Amino acid sequence: MGTVPLLSDEAASPEARAVFDDIRIKRNTDYVNNFWRALAHDPAALKDTWESVARVMAPGALEPLVKELVYVAVSTANGCSYCVHSHTAAARAKGMTPEMHAELVQVIGMAMRTNGMVTALGVEVDERLRG
Amino acid sequence: MGTVPLLSDEAASPEARAVFDDIRIKRNTDYVNNFWRALAHDPAALKDTWESVARVMAPGALEPLVKELVYVAVSTANGCSYCVHSHTAAARAKGMTPEMHAELVQVIGMAMRTNGMVTALGVEVDERLRG
Amino acid sequence: MGTVPLLSDEAASPEARAVFDDIRIKRNTDYVNNFWRALAHDPAALKDTWESVARVMAPGALEPLVKELVYVAVSTANGCSYCVHSHTAAARAKGMTPEMHAELVQVIGMAMRTNGMVTALGVEVDERLRG
Amino acid sequence: MGTVPLLSDEAASPEARAVFDDIRIKRNTDYVNNFWRALAHDPAALKDTWESVARVMAPGALEPLVKELVYVAVSTANGCSYCVHSHTAAARAKGMTPEMHAELVQVIGMAMRTNGMVTALGVEVDERLRG
Amino acid sequence: MGTVPLLSDEAASPEARAVFDDIRIKRNTDYVNNFWRALAHDPAALKDTWESVARVMAPGALEPLVKELVYVAVSTANGCSYCVHSHTAAARAKGMTPEMHAELVQVIGMAMRTNGMVTALGVEVDERLRG
Amino acid sequence: MGTVPLLSDEAASPEARAVFDDIRIKRNTDYVNNFWRALAHDPAALKDTWESVARVMAPGALEPLVKELVYVAVSTANGCSYCVHSHTAAARAKGMTPEMHAELVQVIGMAMRTNGMVTALGVEVDERLRG
Repeated sequence: MGTVPLLSDEAASPEARAVFDDIRIKRNTDYVNNFWRALAHDPAALKDTWESVARVMAPGALEPLVKELVYVAVSTANGCSYCVHSHTAAARAKGMTPEMHAELVQVIGMAMRTNGMVTALGVEVDERLRG
Repeated sequence: MGTVPLLSDEAASPEARAVFDDIRIKRNTDYVNNFWRALAHDPAALKDTWESVARVMAPGALEPLVKELVYVAVSTANGCSYCVHSHTAAARAKGMTPEMHAELVQVIGMAMRTNGMVTALGVEVDERLRG
Repeated sequence: MGTVPLLSDEAASPEARAVFDDIRIKRNTDYVNNFWRALAHDPAALKDTWESVARVMAPGALEPLVKELVYVAVSTANGCSYCVHSHTAAARAKGMTPEMHAELVQVIGMAMRTNGMVTALGVEVDERLRG
Repeated sequence: MGTVPLLSDEAASPEARAVFDDIRIKRNTDYVNNFWRALAHDPAALKDTWESVARVMAPGALEPLVKELVYVAVSTANGCSYCVHSHTAAARAKGMTPEMHAELVQVIGMAMRTNGMVTALGVEVDERLRG
Repeated sequence: MGTVPLLSDEAASPEARAVFDDIRIKRNTDYVNNFWRALAHDPAALKDTWESVARVMAPGALEPLVKELVYVAVSTANGCSYCVHSHTAAARAKGMTPEMHAELVQVIGMAMRTNGMVTALGVEVDERLRG
Repeated sequence: MGTVPLLSDEAASPEARAVFDDIRIKRNTDYVNNFWRALAHDPAALKDTWESVARVMAPGALEPLVKELVYVAVSTANGCSYCVHSHTAAARAKGMTPEMHAELVQVIGMAMRTNGMVTALGVEVDERLRG
């Protein structure tokens, strides 16, 4: 359905299959998302992307849930429907309640609104914000 | 510099001036950002936008700081430099540390990266994520 | 300042200069905008783009002013500051009043807002709208 | 199918149901679009969004049809397929003819084209357009 | 399914049908893509768009395959799924191997990533790059 | 000027300074671009980003110059002016002639144009392209 076929466990190379197994362990699920199966044609990219995502989304100065909310926000502004669905699910798995989701949608909408107004008005950055 | 001139307190209508004053009180500062001064040509829109932003960004199921991080994320994906600057400053005022900012930048970058990869691969939403 | 230098009348080729002259006549001004001067390194592209814009923006089923408002809207959503400035000026030259501009900004902001909300909610097109 | 289920009249809260009824009256139809049914999980946001859209899209210095054309343009540039479908339908309901639609598509395409060319060339805003 | 119906050969006007025939000859296939069938309601736009695309994508200083890769990249960043699919197919027809496709996806992802990081950091263009 | 100050060699940590030195060696220049100086507040992110970019942009199935053209295309569609400037310069350093640049700008413009038309028309992916 995409620009490349999704690879099943059987069709994937041993290197790709090893990443699938790592995804299963780290996410504590048997299910491997379509993105990883599409990316598996390039095992090195699959491994690098999975490890980079895992590292960036790990707990740090920001909680994993907050990071997922940011991920959903970026994905929405970029119009990536797949990403919105998968990271909304990830946010729920990390504790996002319906109330939090509703507020997230409102903040995204408000940011989009003022982004458009600011750009249409051609507002320049305040001197004091230029650092 | 923009597509409309910024209105000083003196040039603004009494209705717009009242919003400027409310901004000063709620934000506990004498400074009114360029966006509000550009929008002041339309006092009703100024009032509605300011009140909507204040309502949406207020504490709720999500903390105000988290909302600012989401706002920065959306503004970045939309390429609104003014919005990135003003909401990064707002996030700092609400407690964002340099470590949190650095992680925010990394999450935004990672989300942009996989947004592009997913779209280029044409990955379709997993059945189990379609609800 | 850009990725290519702007060409003065003297530096432009005769073919590019002929387009500059046509712009001056059609727009009834001596001023040639930076975009055309940047594009003049490729005289065939300059001629094709100028003629395409002139043809598409000419009066038809939609008035030229309405077309400029649409142009500003697209340019805003794409974050093209130059385009927002130049087409806002063009819209004013074709009769856009401050009241019309203020409403344009509000409509753009509202569209951006619901675009974001719709995408975050993953709303699918209604059966009855699928034609 | 989306990130939240669509709420039927029966599943919606009394507050959300009241907004559905208002949509039916104002739009003179029994049909309530998917967007409103997805948003109904947050009745306050539903009410605020519906009333804001109604107010911004009402006749003013710009005709309602022109506002719908602008809405379609923004939605297109943001890649919101749902929004393009629903506001193209709304524009038709307000009088957009096939000829007007065809011209709208051409203007959007031309704006996208020059947006890209301007950004690739890094063209800076003309001094005289900086106000 | 779209905002306009796709026109079959029988439903298309003689002018549109002539463009369909030209597409068949130039592309050496009997198949006419959905885009052209949707655009056929406006035969002049169909003809102009087809001829412009053919001219711009022809061999020149850049090879046709390189141009298709650039087309896929732009379409991905704009979130145009149709365009990603059709130009990925075109790139394959012009010689894109699976290895080239995998690298294209990686470069797009990396560009998206640093685009987001640069914008979030508000990095200004280096003096030496301002020309 | 950005949302974080640029770090000079003196202000950078030893880890960041080591990346600066690697950039100097690999690029055979003493100049370190603003992006790297802004990112240097997070030495681990600086190192990871620099190494990822270097790896992805290295010669492979696609030539480095082609990769730079793709990078410019993505950056343009995302409206990242900094990225357009820096990668246009990089493309020139790798052999992009003025003729190639002019064609790149035309292809980007044409892709943007049909992206907009396709989305406005709501064209669905052809069955035969769904794989």
